[in-house]
Amino acid sequence: MFVLDSRLQQDTFVLGDLPLSRVLLSNDARYPWFILVPRREDVSEVFQLSAEDQQALWAEAALLGEVLKDAFKADKINIATLGNVVSQLHMHVIVRYRTDDAWPAPVWGRHPAKPYDEAQVAALREKLRSVMPRQYNSAEV
Amino acid sequence: MFVLDSRLQQDTFVLGDLPLSRVLLSNDARYPWFILVPRREDVSEVFQLSAEDQQALWAEAALLGEVLKDAFKADKINIATLGNVVSQLHMHVIVRYRTDDAWPAPVWGRHPAKPYDEAQVAALREKLRSVMPRQYNSAEV
Repeated sequence: MFVLDSRLQQDTFVLGDLPLSRVLLSNDARYPWFILVPRREDVSEVFQLSAEDQQALWAEAALLGEVLKDAFKADKINIATLGNVVSQLHMHVIVRYRTDDAWPAPVWGRHPAKPYDEAQVAALREKLRSVMPRQYNSAEV
Repeated sequence: MFVLDSRLQQDTFVLGDLPLSRVLLSNDARYPWFILVPRREDVSEVFQLSAEDQQALWAEAALLGEVLKDAFKADKINIATLGNVVSQLHMHVIVRYRTDDAWPAPVWGRHPAKPYDEAQVAALREKLRSVMPRQYNSAEV
């Protein structure tokens, strides 16, 4: 049974589910930073997924990236699967602005995370729900 | 006509071509660091590619990642499309070891690049040629 890695649980909020992936919000208010986690067990590299799941993951990442670019008026979208610290396969999809705290560097490890308050998380959950297509199921709060 | 971004030209060696992407070696000997550049004009976000090209790019990244994991006995493969500095769409596929200079952090901006010498580049070009499947065309030197 799929269980979200405990470190991801600790550092993120669950926003909802796409057909393959759980959609998380990274608890760092410096950047609109989302993470997709395919609900599959024992997978750490993208190429360990079935061919069908690989296509679905990439499609979900591209979908989320395109939706976020428009909804957040991003200057750039960063998409990455690293997994050096948390080995459970997860794909970062991050909204970047030329004015953000790390630009142009990648966000990882650049500055200490700035936690969200509850109202901000609720607003982001609702914002995502309002822009994502029908295959996205927003989590009940 | 597709032209490789001048900064990518400056900082990499061309190793060969896959059906969609040019395959580059980043000139940083700290990490076996490869970059795929879809041979398409005026594309900076992965979702700006056609649906067919998106599938091809992801498939090429997964293929390269899987081949490299085995050929280099990687502890982990990092795959990312950032594009904050060089906007021409390009996908990093990087071999990581727990003992490398940046681990577990991502490689970008962590340490100054350590340039390769010609013999090392030739050896890596040959190594990749020997492990990649038939749709990969190794560049003449």
